[in-house]
Amino acid sequence: MQQLTIVKVGGKIVENAESLTAFLKDFTLIAGDKILVHGGGHSATDLAEKLGIKTTLTEGRRITDAEMLKVVTMVYAGWVNKTVVAQLQKLLVDAIGLTGADMNLILSEKRPIKEIDYGFVGDIKSVNVLSLLELLKQNYLPVIAPITHDGSGNLLNTNADTVAAEVAKSLAFDYNVRLIYCFDKKGVLMNEADEKSLIPILDLELFEQYKSEGIIQGGMIPKLTNALQAVACGVKEVIITCASNVNTGKGTLIR
Amino acid sequence: MQQLTIVKVGGKIVENAESLTAFLKDFTLIAGDKILVHGGGHSATDLAEKLGIKTTLTEGRRITDAEMLKVVTMVYAGWVNKTVVAQLQKLLVDAIGLTGADMNLILSEKRPIKEIDYGFVGDIKSVNVLSLLELLKQNYLPVIAPITHDGSGNLLNTNADTVAAEVAKSLAFDYNVRLIYCFDKKGVLMNEADEKSLIPILDLELFEQYKSEGIIQGGMIPKLTNALQAVACGVKEVIITCASNVNTGKGTLIR
Repeated sequence: MQQLTIVKVGGKIVENAESLTAFLKDFTLIAGDKILVHGGGHSATDLAEKLGIKTTLTEGRRITDAEMLKVVTMVYAGWVNKTVVAQLQKLLVDAIGLTGADMNLILSEKRPIKEIDYGFVGDIKSVNVLSLLELLKQNYLPVIAPITHDGSGNLLNTNADTVAAEVAKSLAFDYNVRLIYCFDKKGVLMNEADEKSLIPILDLELFEQYKSEGIIQGGMIPKLTNALQAVACGVKEVIITCASNVNTGKGTLIR
Repeated sequence: MQQLTIVKVGGKIVENAESLTAFLKDFTLIAGDKILVHGGGHSATDLAEKLGIKTTLTEGRRITDAEMLKVVTMVYAGWVNKTVVAQLQKLLVDAIGLTGADMNLILSEKRPIKEIDYGFVGDIKSVNVLSLLELLKQNYLPVIAPITHDGSGNLLNTNADTVAAEVAKSLAFDYNVRLIYCFDKKGVLMNEADEKSLIPILDLELFEQYKSEGIIQGGMIPKLTNALQAVACGVKEVIITCASNVNTGKGTLIR
């Protein structure tokens, strides 16, 4: 099977012109078919603040009321997505920017209200594999903003790590899929303050052990849960690394 | 040849949930292949105002500095475009939202500075016909936001009427193209205050006559110039009408 690399890159990298340029140069060096999933949370928080809209995060997840949905859609699907696409076109890469609503690509449902009402946040129900395969076959590079839709006319804010994982899982029957999560550390660390304490390889057993020992905690838990689920569903490998190592294979390997 | 209808609809209609719903119901009733080009100027002006960014229009054209480019990209390509796409998906129409950067669809160049510096405004150089044909063949409905790119990494603000006309002209070899401009009157009027004074048919000769007599003036001149150029370049007909008549054939016919 052909190789497909799905990279998720966070807001900090793509929202800054300089780091975006450096990142895209490295990213485009990855051989074979590629999909890019991006965030944009910092710009969304900035814009919300300028508009007097309060940002509330619960366990790192954004509470998305109607006003905030407009903000994240404008930032993720508008400015960030189209900036990335234009920069890729400059590098002669035929990118196409998409949300889950475009081509009915990612269908989600509004998260049910339990202890917390997340508002217009969508949990993914399905990924339209055929449309993605068709785009890849035609040599387009899909650039996906973490906005999905419910099929009833509503846009929904969806976690970008989850979007990347679900897209990776959906394509695992047709490709050898490698999923790369770029964030601000060199990988998963034994000690957050020490970049040299990189954990080279993680599996479910080691994850559970480190979690119970408090070595793995906070925002790393949902990220690794997404990664381990992806591997369980046929994704060949997941790498957690920093943006500047996107094409080096370095980082924490999850399998 | 197959029929293709390209509709350009202005901001007032698409920015309001109620009028958008009514419009899309009528729009989707049009038989055959379709492309929708939308504006969003009112929302852009609103957002700019909230952010303390001054809107300057010269002869109805927006002066687009770096901050305003961000605003129009967020509004046109982000909120308006994705809202329209999600609403079309609700109507089971497989829409895909695009700017000129996506798929390298519309390449433009920054307007040279003469008497006026329009800023990040793009004049269209070329339309990627093959990608549009491929999307239409696959039964996608392209929804185009009036943002283009220069191939050097810059997004550019481009007049939506012009985008619609250039897209129409580019497809005139492959389709019988009908271009419909929806605006807030029933068509081109002899007397702006009297909706019954509709001019049923216009050609270049009559346009020149009415222009010299001061009957046609202001923003109608560039709109009709776009329309007449489209007809001269092989577009079968252009209709200028109001949104509620989009599928009736009523309005001013330009040929």
